[in-house]
Amino acid sequence: MTEPTRTGRRPGTSSTREAILTAARERFAEVGFDKASIRSIASAAGVDPALVHHYFGTKQQLLTAALDLPIDPEAILATLAAVPDELLGETVVRLIVGIWDSPVGVRAVAAFRAILSSADPSLARSFLLEVPLRAIRDRADNPPGTGATRAALVGSQMGGLLLARKVLELEPLASMPVDELADLVGPTLQRYLTGELAAPVAGGAASPQK
Amino acid sequence: MTEPTRTGRRPGTSSTREAILTAARERFAEVGFDKASIRSIASAAGVDPALVHHYFGTKQQLLTAALDLPIDPEAILATLAAVPDELLGETVVRLIVGIWDSPVGVRAVAAFRAILSSADPSLARSFLLEVPLRAIRDRADNPPGTGATRAALVGSQMGGLLLARKVLELEPLASMPVDELADLVGPTLQRYLTGELAAPVAGGAASPQK
Repeated sequence: MTEPTRTGRRPGTSSTREAILTAARERFAEVGFDKASIRSIASAAGVDPALVHHYFGTKQQLLTAALDLPIDPEAILATLAAVPDELLGETVVRLIVGIWDSPVGVRAVAAFRAILSSADPSLARSFLLEVPLRAIRDRADNPPGTGATRAALVGSQMGGLLLARKVLELEPLASMPVDELADLVGPTLQRYLTGELAAPVAGGAASPQK
Repeated sequence: MTEPTRTGRRPGTSSTREAILTAARERFAEVGFDKASIRSIASAAGVDPALVHHYFGTKQQLLTAALDLPIDPEAILATLAAVPDELLGETVVRLIVGIWDSPVGVRAVAAFRAILSSADPSLARSFLLEVPLRAIRDRADNPPGTGATRAALVGSQMGGLLLARKVLELEPLASMPVDELADLVGPTLQRYLTGELAAPVAGGAASPQK
Protein backbone atom coordinates (compact mmCIF):
# COMPACT_ATOMS: atom_id res chain seq x y z
CA MET A 1 0.00 0.00 0.00
CA THR A 2 3.00 2.28 -0.38
CA GLU A 3 1.65 3.57 -3.68
CA PRO A 4 -1.86 3.73 -5.10
CA THR A 5 -2.69 1.03 -7.66
CA ARG A 6 -5.98 0.14 -9.29
CA THR A 7 -6.12 -3.33 -7.83
CA GLY A 8 -4.58 -2.50 -4.47
CA ARG A 9 -2.09 -5.29 -5.08
CA ARG A 10 1.48 -4.63 -4.01
CA PRO A 11 4.01 -4.19 -6.77
CA GLY A 12 6.57 -6.91 -7.34
CA THR A 13 4.38 -9.84 -6.29
CA SER A 14 2.93 -10.99 -9.60
CA SER A 15 5.80 -13.42 -10.26
CA THR A 16 5.26 -15.01 -6.83
CA ARG A 17 1.53 -15.34 -7.49
CA GLU A 18 2.23 -16.88 -10.87
CA ALA A 19 4.74 -19.32 -9.38
CA ILE A 20 2.14 -20.43 -6.83
CA LEU A 21 -0.54 -20.81 -9.51
CA THR A 22 1.78 -22.82 -11.73
CA ALA A 23 2.74 -25.10 -8.85
CA ALA A 24 -0.93 -25.49 -7.91
CA ARG A 25 -1.95 -26.45 -11.46
CA GLU A 26 0.79 -29.06 -11.57
CA ARG A 27 0.01 -30.55 -8.15
CA PHE A 28 -3.76 -30.64 -8.68
CA ALA A 29 -3.24 -32.34 -12.05
CA GLU A 30 -0.70 -34.80 -10.67
CA VAL A 31 -2.26 -35.99 -7.44
CA GLY A 32 -5.79 -34.54 -7.41
CA PHE A 33 -7.33 -31.87 -5.23
CA ASP A 34 -7.45 -33.84 -1.98
CA LYS A 35 -3.86 -35.02 -1.97
CA ALA A 36 -2.37 -31.73 -3.15
CA SER A 37 -1.50 -29.97 0.10
CA ILE A 38 -0.98 -26.24 0.40
CA ARG A 39 2.36 -27.16 1.95
CA SER A 40 3.48 -29.15 -1.12
CA ILE A 41 2.30 -26.43 -3.49
CA ALA A 42 4.16 -23.78 -1.47
CA SER A 43 7.25 -25.96 -1.46
CA ALA A 44 7.12 -26.43 -5.25
CA ALA A 45 6.73 -22.67 -5.68
CA GLY A 46 9.55 -21.95 -3.24
CA VAL A 47 7.42 -19.88 -0.87
CA ASP A 48 6.03 -20.13 2.67
CA PRO A 49 2.61 -21.85 2.98
CA ALA A 50 1.31 -18.77 4.81
CA LEU A 51 1.91 -16.75 1.65
CA VAL A 52 -0.30 -19.12 -0.34
CA HIS A 53 -3.14 -18.57 2.13
CA HIS A 54 -2.44 -14.85 2.14
CA TYR A 55 -2.77 -14.57 -1.64
CA PHE A 56 -5.47 -17.12 -2.37
CA GLY A 57 -7.37 -18.01 0.82
CA THR A 58 -8.64 -21.59 0.99
CA LYS A 59 -7.48 -24.51 -1.16
CA GLN A 60 -10.78 -24.38 -3.06
CA GLN A 61 -10.21 -20.71 -3.79
CA LEU A 62 -6.68 -21.57 -4.96
CA LEU A 63 -8.11 -24.19 -7.33
CA THR A 64 -10.59 -21.64 -8.69
CA ALA A 65 -7.73 -19.20 -9.26
CA ALA A 66 -5.59 -21.93 -10.86
CA LEU A 67 -8.37 -22.67 -13.33
CA ASP A 68 -8.83 -18.94 -14.00
CA LEU A 69 -12.57 -19.31 -13.51
CA PRO A 70 -14.58 -16.10 -13.73
CA ILE A 71 -16.86 -17.14 -10.87
CA ASP A 72 -16.56 -18.47 -7.35
CA PRO A 73 -17.98 -22.02 -7.19
CA GLU A 74 -18.51 -21.64 -3.46
CA ALA A 75 -21.05 -18.87 -4.03
CA ILE A 76 -23.02 -21.18 -6.31
CA LEU A 77 -22.82 -24.06 -3.85
CA ALA A 78 -24.06 -21.80 -1.06
CA THR A 79 -27.07 -20.87 -3.19
CA LEU A 80 -27.87 -24.51 -3.93
CA ALA A 81 -27.56 -25.46 -0.27
CA ALA A 82 -30.58 -23.26 0.46
CA VAL A 83 -32.80 -24.88 -2.20
CA PRO A 84 -35.24 -27.66 -1.19
CA ASP A 85 -34.53 -31.10 -2.68
CA GLU A 86 -37.54 -31.12 -4.98
CA LEU A 87 -36.44 -27.91 -6.73
CA LEU A 88 -32.78 -28.85 -7.17
CA GLY A 89 -33.08 -29.98 -10.80
CA GLU A 90 -34.55 -26.84 -12.29
CA THR A 91 -32.50 -24.62 -9.95
CA VAL A 92 -29.23 -26.14 -11.17
CA VAL A 93 -30.29 -25.48 -14.78
CA ARG A 94 -31.29 -21.87 -14.06
CA LEU A 95 -28.17 -21.11 -12.04
CA ILE A 96 -25.62 -22.68 -14.37
CA VAL A 97 -27.19 -21.59 -17.65
CA GLY A 98 -27.55 -18.12 -16.11
CA ILE A 99 -23.78 -17.99 -15.67
CA TRP A 100 -23.08 -19.16 -19.24
CA ASP A 101 -25.42 -16.46 -20.55
CA SER A 102 -24.00 -13.71 -18.32
CA PRO A 103 -21.11 -11.38 -19.24
CA VAL A 104 -18.64 -13.73 -17.52
CA GLY A 105 -20.05 -16.66 -19.49
CA VAL A 106 -17.69 -16.05 -22.41
CA ARG A 107 -14.76 -16.83 -20.13
CA ALA A 108 -16.50 -19.88 -18.65
CA VAL A 109 -17.07 -21.26 -22.13
CA ALA A 110 -13.48 -20.48 -23.13
CA ALA A 111 -12.23 -22.34 -20.04
CA PHE A 112 -14.46 -25.31 -20.95
CA ARG A 113 -13.08 -25.44 -24.50
CA ALA A 114 -9.51 -25.14 -23.23
CA ILE A 115 -10.16 -28.07 -20.89
CA LEU A 116 -11.59 -30.18 -23.71
CA SER A 117 -8.70 -29.56 -26.07
CA SER A 118 -6.06 -30.15 -23.42
CA ALA A 119 -4.19 -33.39 -23.91
CA ASP A 120 -4.42 -34.15 -20.21
CA PRO A 121 -7.86 -33.57 -18.69
CA SER A 122 -6.79 -34.45 -15.15
CA LEU A 123 -6.89 -30.86 -13.86
CA ALA A 124 -10.44 -30.49 -15.16
CA ARG A 125 -11.45 -33.85 -13.70
CA SER A 126 -9.86 -32.92 -10.40
CA PHE A 127 -11.82 -29.66 -10.29
CA LEU A 128 -15.13 -31.27 -11.29
CA LEU A 129 -14.77 -34.14 -8.86
CA GLU A 130 -13.59 -32.12 -5.92
CA VAL A 131 -15.75 -29.02 -6.08
CA PRO A 132 -19.13 -29.05 -7.88
CA LEU A 133 -19.63 -32.80 -8.19
CA ARG A 134 -18.53 -33.46 -4.61
CA ALA A 135 -21.09 -30.99 -3.33
CA ILE A 136 -23.81 -32.68 -5.40
CA ARG A 137 -22.61 -36.13 -4.37
CA ASP A 138 -22.78 -35.36 -0.67
CA ARG A 139 -26.17 -33.68 -1.00
CA ALA A 140 -27.74 -36.41 -3.15
CA ASP A 141 -26.20 -39.52 -1.54
CA ASN A 142 -29.52 -41.19 -0.82
CA PRO A 143 -29.60 -44.16 -0.51
CA PRO A 144 -25.97 -44.07 0.63
CA GLY A 145 -23.54 -45.04 -2.14
CA THR A 146 -25.54 -43.50 -4.99
CA GLY A 147 -24.15 -39.96 -4.70
CA ALA A 148 -21.15 -40.33 -7.01
CA THR A 149 -23.29 -41.83 -9.78
CA ARG A 150 -25.95 -39.13 -9.37
CA ALA A 151 -23.35 -36.35 -9.49
CA ALA A 152 -21.62 -37.76 -12.57
CA LEU A 153 -24.96 -38.09 -14.40
CA VAL A 154 -25.79 -34.46 -13.60
CA GLY A 155 -22.34 -33.49 -14.87
CA SER A 156 -22.89 -35.41 -18.10
CA GLN A 157 -26.18 -33.64 -18.87
CA MET A 158 -24.92 -30.17 -17.97
CA GLY A 159 -21.63 -30.68 -19.85
CA GLY A 160 -23.58 -31.75 -22.92
CA LEU A 161 -25.92 -28.79 -22.60
CA LEU A 162 -22.94 -26.42 -22.46
CA LEU A 163 -21.56 -28.15 -25.54
CA ALA A 164 -24.84 -27.87 -27.46
CA ARG A 165 -25.80 -24.32 -26.40
CA LYS A 166 -22.43 -22.58 -26.33
CA VAL A 167 -19.85 -24.54 -28.31
CA LEU A 168 -21.84 -26.05 -31.19
CA GLU A 169 -24.61 -23.41 -30.91
CA LEU A 170 -27.15 -26.05 -31.81
CA GLU A 171 -30.68 -24.75 -32.26
CA PRO A 172 -33.20 -24.67 -30.70
CA LEU A 173 -31.07 -25.09 -27.55
CA ALA A 174 -28.66 -22.24 -28.38
CA SER A 175 -31.25 -19.47 -28.19
CA MET A 176 -33.88 -21.10 -25.95
CA PRO A 177 -34.95 -18.96 -22.94
CA VAL A 178 -33.61 -20.30 -19.66
CA ASP A 179 -37.18 -20.84 -18.33
CA GLU A 180 -37.89 -23.27 -21.14
CA LEU A 181 -34.55 -25.03 -20.67
CA ALA A 182 -35.33 -25.42 -16.97
CA ASP A 183 -38.67 -27.03 -17.88
CA LEU A 184 -37.07 -29.41 -20.37
CA VAL A 185 -33.81 -30.38 -18.67
CA GLY A 186 -34.76 -29.78 -15.01
CA PRO A 187 -36.72 -33.07 -14.72
CA THR A 188 -33.69 -34.99 -16.04
CA LEU A 189 -31.47 -33.54 -13.32
CA GLN A 190 -34.20 -34.03 -10.71
CA ARG A 191 -34.39 -37.75 -11.52
CA TYR A 192 -30.60 -38.07 -11.48
CA LEU A 193 -30.47 -36.28 -8.11
CA THR A 194 -33.42 -37.66 -6.19
CA GLY A 195 -35.18 -40.24 -8.37
CA GLU A 196 -35.11 -43.98 -7.94
CA LEU A 197 -32.38 -45.03 -10.30
CA ALA A 198 -33.41 -48.28 -11.94
CA ALA A 199 -29.95 -49.78 -12.02
CA PRO A 200 -27.70 -51.07 -9.28
CA VAL A 201 -25.47 -48.06 -8.69
CA ALA A 202 -21.84 -47.76 -7.78
CA GLY A 203 -21.17 -48.56 -4.17
CA GLY A 204 -24.45 -50.42 -3.78
CA ALA A 205 -24.86 -54.05 -2.76
CA ALA A 206 -23.49 -56.76 -5.01
CA SER A 207 -25.85 -57.29 -7.89
CA PRO A 208 -27.11 -60.62 -9.19
CA GLN A 209 -26.93 -59.20 -12.73
CA LYS A 210 -23.86 -59.65 -14.85
CA MET B 1 -8.31 -53.16 -61.63
CA THR B 2 -5.23 -53.35 -63.85
CA GLU B 3 -3.08 -54.41 -60.92
CA PRO B 4 -3.93 -56.08 -57.63
CA THR B 5 -4.04 -53.76 -54.63
CA ARG B 6 -5.19 -54.45 -51.10
CA THR B 7 -8.02 -51.96 -51.25
CA GLY B 8 -8.94 -52.54 -54.86
CA ARG B 9 -8.66 -48.80 -55.41
CA ARG B 10 -7.12 -47.67 -58.69
CA PRO B 11 -3.68 -46.06 -58.47
CA GLY B 12 -3.29 -42.36 -59.19
CA THR B 13 -6.65 -41.25 -57.82
CA SER B 14 -5.83 -40.32 -54.25
CA SER B 15 -5.18 -36.66 -55.09
CA THR B 16 -8.56 -36.43 -56.82
CA ARG B 17 -10.26 -38.04 -53.83
CA GLU B 18 -8.51 -35.64 -51.48
CA ALA B 19 -9.47 -32.65 -53.62
CA ILE B 20 -13.11 -33.74 -53.48
CA LEU B 21 -12.97 -34.29 -49.71
CA THR B 22 -11.35 -30.88 -49.16
CA ALA B 23 -13.98 -29.18 -51.31
CA ALA B 24 -16.74 -31.08 -49.50
CA ARG B 25 -15.45 -30.04 -46.05
CA GLU B 26 -15.34 -26.41 -47.16
CA ARG B 27 -18.80 -26.40 -48.74
CA PHE B 28 -20.49 -28.27 -45.86
CA ALA B 29 -18.93 -25.85 -43.38
CA GLU B 30 -19.81 -22.79 -45.46
CA VAL B 31 -23.40 -23.42 -46.46
CA GLY B 32 -24.50 -26.51 -44.53
CA PHE B 33 -25.31 -30.00 -45.71
CA ASP B 34 -28.57 -29.22 -47.50
CA LYS B 35 -27.32 -26.31 -49.58
CA ALA B 36 -23.98 -27.89 -50.49
CA SER B 37 -24.72 -29.58 -53.79
CA ILE B 38 -22.64 -32.37 -55.25
CA ARG B 39 -22.39 -30.18 -58.33
CA SER B 40 -20.86 -27.26 -56.39
CA ILE B 41 -18.45 -29.56 -54.57
CA ALA B 42 -17.38 -31.16 -57.83
CA SER B 43 -16.93 -27.71 -59.37
CA ALA B 44 -14.76 -26.54 -56.45
CA ALA B 45 -12.67 -29.70 -56.78
CA GLY B 46 -12.40 -29.31 -60.55
CA VAL B 47 -13.98 -32.68 -61.36
CA ASP B 48 -17.16 -34.01 -62.92
CA PRO B 49 -20.09 -34.55 -60.49
CA ALA B 50 -20.32 -38.16 -61.68
CA LEU B 51 -16.85 -38.76 -60.30
CA VAL B 52 -17.97 -37.59 -56.84
CA HIS B 53 -20.79 -40.12 -56.89
CA HIS B 54 -18.44 -42.76 -58.24
CA TYR B 55 -15.97 -42.31 -55.39
CA PHE B 56 -18.28 -41.57 -52.48
CA GLY B 57 -21.84 -42.61 -53.33
CA THR B 58 -24.54 -40.44 -51.77
CA LYS B 59 -24.08 -36.95 -50.30
CA GLN B 60 -24.50 -38.43 -46.80
CA GLN B 61 -21.73 -40.92 -47.53
CA LEU B 62 -19.57 -38.04 -48.79
CA LEU B 63 -20.18 -36.17 -45.52
CA THR B 64 -19.22 -39.27 -43.54
CA ALA B 65 -16.01 -39.55 -45.58
CA ALA B 66 -15.31 -35.82 -45.19
CA LEU B 67 -15.53 -36.18 -41.41
CA ASP B 68 -13.31 -39.27 -41.52
CA LEU B 69 -15.78 -41.15 -39.31
CA PRO B 70 -14.93 -44.77 -38.58
CA ILE B 71 -18.55 -45.86 -38.90
CA ASP B 72 -21.41 -45.45 -41.32
CA PRO B 73 -24.20 -43.41 -39.67
CA GLU B 74 -26.70 -44.88 -42.12
CA ALA B 75 -26.15 -48.36 -40.70
CA ILE B 76 -26.96 -47.06 -37.21
CA LEU B 77 -30.02 -45.22 -38.45
CA ALA B 78 -31.26 -48.36 -40.18
CA THR B 79 -30.95 -50.27 -36.89
CA LEU B 80 -32.87 -47.60 -35.01
CA ALA B 81 -35.60 -47.53 -37.63
CA ALA B 82 -36.47 -51.13 -36.71
CA VAL B 83 -36.78 -50.43 -32.95
CA PRO B 84 -40.24 -49.76 -31.44
CA ASP B 85 -40.77 -46.25 -30.02
CA GLU B 86 -40.85 -47.35 -26.40
CA LEU B 87 -37.38 -48.92 -26.61
CA LEU B 88 -35.70 -46.05 -28.45
CA GLY B 89 -34.11 -44.45 -25.37
CA GLU B 90 -32.19 -47.44 -24.08
CA THR B 91 -31.41 -48.64 -27.62
CA VAL B 92 -29.75 -45.35 -28.51
CA VAL B 93 -27.58 -45.60 -25.37
CA ARG B 94 -26.59 -49.22 -26.09
CA LEU B 95 -25.86 -48.59 -29.75
CA ILE B 96 -23.87 -45.37 -29.36
CA VAL B 97 -21.94 -46.36 -26.23
CA GLY B 98 -21.24 -49.70 -27.92
CA ILE B 99 -19.48 -47.83 -30.74
CA TRP B 100 -17.43 -45.69 -28.34
CA ASP B 101 -16.32 -48.82 -26.50
CA SER B 102 -15.52 -50.78 -29.69
CA PRO B 103 -12.15 -50.84 -31.46
CA VAL B 104 -13.26 -48.01 -33.77
CA GLY B 105 -14.31 -45.95 -30.74
CA VAL B 106 -10.84 -44.49 -30.31
CA ARG B 107 -11.21 -42.78 -33.66
CA ALA B 108 -14.75 -41.64 -32.89
CA VAL B 109 -13.54 -40.03 -29.66
CA ALA B 110 -10.58 -38.45 -31.47
CA ALA B 111 -12.97 -36.99 -34.07
CA PHE B 112 -15.16 -35.61 -31.25
CA ARG B 113 -12.20 -33.94 -29.57
CA ALA B 114 -10.99 -32.50 -32.87
CA ILE B 115 -14.45 -31.05 -33.44
CA LEU B 116 -14.51 -29.48 -29.99
CA SER B 117 -11.13 -27.84 -30.32
CA SER B 118 -11.79 -26.56 -33.83
CA ALA B 119 -12.24 -22.80 -33.93
CA ASP B 120 -15.21 -23.19 -36.27
CA PRO B 121 -17.69 -25.89 -35.26
CA SER B 122 -19.91 -25.41 -38.32
CA LEU B 123 -18.84 -28.66 -40.02
CA ALA B 124 -19.66 -30.61 -36.87
CA ARG B 125 -22.97 -28.79 -36.47
CA SER B 126 -23.79 -29.44 -40.10
CA PHE B 127 -23.12 -33.15 -39.67
CA LEU B 128 -25.08 -33.46 -36.42
CA LEU B 129 -28.04 -31.50 -37.73
CA GLU B 130 -28.24 -33.19 -41.09
CA VAL B 131 -27.57 -36.82 -40.29
CA PRO B 132 -28.19 -38.24 -36.78
CA LEU B 133 -30.28 -35.41 -35.36
CA ARG B 134 -32.41 -35.11 -38.49
CA ALA B 135 -33.23 -38.81 -38.34
CA ILE B 136 -34.22 -38.47 -34.68
CA ARG B 137 -36.16 -35.28 -35.39
CA ASP B 138 -38.23 -36.85 -38.13
CA ARG B 139 -38.87 -39.99 -36.09
CA ALA B 140 -39.81 -38.16 -32.88
CA ASP B 141 -41.74 -35.21 -34.30
CA ASN B 142 -44.88 -35.86 -32.27
CA PRO B 143 -46.74 -33.60 -31.75
CA PRO B 144 -45.52 -31.97 -34.96
CA GLY B 145 -43.01 -29.20 -34.33
CA THR B 146 -41.35 -30.85 -31.32
CA GLY B 147 -38.85 -32.98 -33.26
CA ALA B 148 -35.98 -30.49 -33.45
CA THR B 149 -36.12 -29.81 -29.71
CA ARG B 150 -36.29 -33.53 -28.90
CA ALA B 151 -33.33 -34.31 -31.16
CA ALA B 152 -31.19 -31.50 -29.73
CA LEU B 153 -31.94 -32.65 -26.17
CA VAL B 154 -30.90 -36.21 -27.05
CA GLY B 155 -27.75 -34.79 -28.61
CA SER B 156 -26.98 -32.80 -25.47
CA GLN B 157 -27.23 -35.85 -23.19
CA MET B 158 -25.24 -38.15 -25.47
CA GLY B 159 -22.59 -35.49 -26.12
CA GLY B 160 -22.20 -34.98 -22.40
CA LEU B 161 -22.01 -38.71 -21.79
CA LEU B 162 -19.24 -39.01 -24.38
CA LEU B 163 -17.46 -36.15 -22.66
CA ALA B 164 -17.76 -37.74 -19.21
CA ARG B 165 -17.01 -41.34 -20.19
CA LYS B 166 -14.34 -40.93 -22.83
CA VAL B 167 -12.78 -37.46 -22.61
CA LEU B 168 -12.76 -36.68 -18.89
CA GLU B 169 -12.96 -40.37 -17.90
CA LEU B 170 -15.16 -39.43 -14.99
CA GLU B 171 -16.00 -42.32 -12.67
CA PRO B 172 -18.28 -44.14 -12.17
CA LEU B 173 -19.44 -43.36 -15.73
CA ALA B 174 -16.09 -44.14 -17.37
CA SER B 175 -16.05 -47.82 -16.47
CA MET B 176 -19.78 -48.48 -16.01
CA PRO B 177 -21.14 -51.49 -17.97
CA VAL B 178 -23.31 -50.45 -20.90
CA ASP B 179 -26.35 -52.26 -19.42
CA GLU B 180 -26.22 -50.06 -16.35
CA LEU B 181 -25.73 -46.92 -18.45
CA ALA B 182 -28.77 -47.90 -20.52
CA ASP B 183 -30.81 -48.22 -17.31
CA LEU B 184 -29.64 -44.86 -15.99
CA VAL B 185 -29.57 -42.69 -19.13
CA GLY B 186 -32.14 -44.55 -21.28
CA PRO B 187 -35.15 -43.05 -19.45
CA THR B 188 -33.76 -39.54 -20.02
CA LEU B 189 -33.57 -40.13 -23.77
CA GLN B 190 -36.96 -41.84 -23.75
CA ARG B 191 -38.57 -38.76 -22.18
CA TYR B 192 -36.80 -36.44 -24.60
CA LEU B 193 -37.93 -38.60 -27.54
CA THR B 194 -41.49 -39.56 -26.67
CA GLY B 195 -42.41 -37.94 -23.36
CA GLU B 196 -44.71 -35.00 -22.82
CA LEU B 197 -42.30 -32.12 -22.66
CA ALA B 198 -43.56 -29.66 -20.08
CA ALA B 199 -42.54 -26.56 -21.95
CA PRO B 200 -43.83 -24.98 -25.11
CA VAL B 201 -41.36 -26.26 -27.67
CA ALA B 202 -39.83 -24.71 -30.73
CA GLY B 203 -42.12 -24.69 -33.72
CA GLY B 204 -45.22 -25.14 -31.58
CA ALA B 205 -48.11 -22.69 -31.31
CA ALA B 206 -47.41 -19.19 -30.06
CA SER B 207 -46.96 -19.28 -26.33
CA PRO B 208 -48.62 -16.89 -23.86
CA GLN B 209 -45.40 -16.99 -21.79
CA LYS B 210 -42.66 -14.45 -22.34
